[in-house]
Amino acid sequence: MGRLDTEAMTGLVPDFLAVIHPAISHPSAQVEGFIGGLLKCQCDKSPVVVSVGSQASHNHLCGCSLCWKPDGALFSQVAVVPRDAVHVTENGDKLGLVDPSAVIQRYACRDCGVHLVGRIEASSHPFYGLDFIHTELSTDVGWEPPKFAAFVSSIIEAGFPAAEMPNMRRHLRSLGLEPYDCLSPELMDAISSHIVLQKQSRPRQRVEVAAE
Amino acid sequence: MGRLDTEAMTGLVPDFLAVIHPAISHPSAQVEGFIGGLLKCQCDKSPVVVSVGSQASHNHLCGCSLCWKPDGALFSQVAVVPRDAVHVTENGDKLGLVDPSAVIQRYACRDCGVHLVGRIEASSHPFYGLDFIHTELSTDVGWEPPKFAAFVSSIIEAGFPAAEMPNMRRHLRSLGLEPYDCLSPELMDAISSHIVLQKQSRPRQRVEVAAE
Repeated sequence: MGRLDTEAMTGLVPDFLAVIHPAISHPSAQVEGFIGGLLKCQCDKSPVVVSVGSQASHNHLCGCSLCWKPDGALFSQVAVVPRDAVHVTENGDKLGLVDPSAVIQRYACRDCGVHLVGRIEASSHPFYGLDFIHTELSTDVGWEPPKFAAFVSSIIEAGFPAAEMPNMRRHLRSLGLEPYDCLSPELMDAISSHIVLQKQSRPRQRVEVAAE
Repeated sequence: MGRLDTEAMTGLVPDFLAVIHPAISHPSAQVEGFIGGLLKCQCDKSPVVVSVGSQASHNHLCGCSLCWKPDGALFSQVAVVPRDAVHVTENGDKLGLVDPSAVIQRYACRDCGVHLVGRIEASSHPFYGLDFIHTELSTDVGWEPPKFAAFVSSIIEAGFPAAEMPNMRRHLRSLGLEPYDCLSPELMDAISSHIVLQKQSRPRQRVEVAAE
């Protein structure tokens, strides 16, 4: 978890741009036809390297307290890729599971603490089959930039002043990053639709078994 | 739980107004200085009566599957009042707890199924001290009308077509009811601020005990 200068955040004109995330203060453009690249942890020697053979999807800022953030950033930047596209290619022995009880199993470098991959093992989860990655760990150019900001209210728990939240939401909107206190409507609808499909499929499976 | 005609909801021009909630199709105005009124369940004989000595706050539509809804409504309408202002005055023996394991302890009439009061017993909860009520159970005029729509994506789980969700959100916005897939930013910020205060108060309490 990065250090956060909460003192600097209180004031009439907080320097939101500096604290939101490096991907916002130093944006890079998406490249059409981009097919992925390498993620590296922050170790100078023997970094963990993960090969990702896919463009990222649903890239967004996240204010939650669990996602990995670069030093000094208020938000993490997190995206998903198909898990089949993700392969640890170097120094995988340095990876450790951050919290075995979490729904997203986050694998971090034991030396520098950077999270390389988050994986969901529960096949019933709406996002099963997708791995979570942080594209700023890649020097390859062309990744999808963040499209919205999720779990925004949670930055209060990291020390951001509650009184500045309307300013923060206004600022995120001005950057084209619609702020949400959960996920985006598109993803929230996908979760609810998944729950419906699961409810529908359960009795059907039973009928099929009984008919054999 | 009300019956829902999901067939009628699929189409180019769904009759959103009819299915959202009676408080939307038949709105009533807030009265300044309103000090509360009586809530009654839907039993013709011996209804449960609850006296509420306060205007309601944070009234909103809620798409979740737990809140009580009038027959045919897609959303519930739910508000909070100080728990000290809530008193069961008639036929309280008909009230039963819907789900003892739920965070909000919802008390419903055993005969007609209407939820009269939802109470939080965990003193650490951000909304402890507030009871949840449905103001459409009152014939008194002057209650605060709903101000936003919460847990909107969850109506998919009640049968609403996912493809119509952009239309639904647009429609709610046109009614002045900003749609959220969790609570409103104001309430989400309050929850995060409460978590911060709790974290801060815990070590302090320990210090005080040690100094005695």
